[in-house]
Amino acid sequence: MIDNLKFDEKGLLPAIIQDFENGQVLMLAYMNKESLARTLESGKTWFYSRSRQKLWQKGEESGHVQEVKEISFDCDNDCLLIKVAQTGVACHTGHYSCFYRTLDGKEVESPIFDLSAVYGAA
Amino acid sequence: MIDNLKFDEKGLLPAIIQDFENGQVLMLAYMNKESLARTLESGKTWFYSRSRQKLWQKGEESGHVQEVKEISFDCDNDCLLIKVAQTGVACHTGHYSCFYRTLDGKEVESPIFDLSAVYGAA
Repeated sequence: MIDNLKFDEKGLLPAIIQDFENGQVLMLAYMNKESLARTLESGKTWFYSRSRQKLWQKGEESGHVQEVKEISFDCDNDCLLIKVAQTGVACHTGHYSCFYRTLDGKEVESPIFDLSAVYGAA
Repeated sequence: MIDNLKFDEKGLLPAIIQDFENGQVLMLAYMNKESLARTLESGKTWFYSRSRQKLWQKGEESGHVQEVKEISFDCDNDCLLIKVAQTGVACHTGHYSCFYRTLDGKEVESPIFDLSAVYGAA
């Protein structure tokens, strides 16, 4: 199945991360073949950072790792959906999900975790 | 808020489409500024097809349109999450969601709609 996946011209696939229990969409990040392989080996999510141009494990600094429960892929073979058990929060802002603001300006979710001790004050 | 969105070097943003009622992730597609504007104007999802290089309304041929319920965006301002009420099915294969196969080879969902009358036999 993995051989059928279509990585883009940069060798990347978008991966949608969804809470396994309540169905909340937590984040979108990108994987290359190596980060997918590490994800499958470790059972924790690994991504490729386009800005830092390196692999990173989600939660490697904060401890807020994601335990993989199920990985599916779409009809075009070019996107992953990964259901996870989230430790702590998914977003570096302290929100449970990275999607905490609506386009019309409402903050639909409050931060539940102060990550300044991990990342330093903003 | 729209002015803060970061479209990529091709002028595109990924948009995760999620069922408003049951939380199921249905598909991922791409939007440019014009398709987002049409989505906001019409209340139905419009995307930009990278393969056909044109705007398309989801369901324009099949009738399986998506009524927009809420649009949020992520902490990096470079991904949308759109909650919709789905008419019919989201996937051109007849599956409700495009994510109907797991990476270990299971089909987790059966097709519920025969779209061959719309798109022609495979």
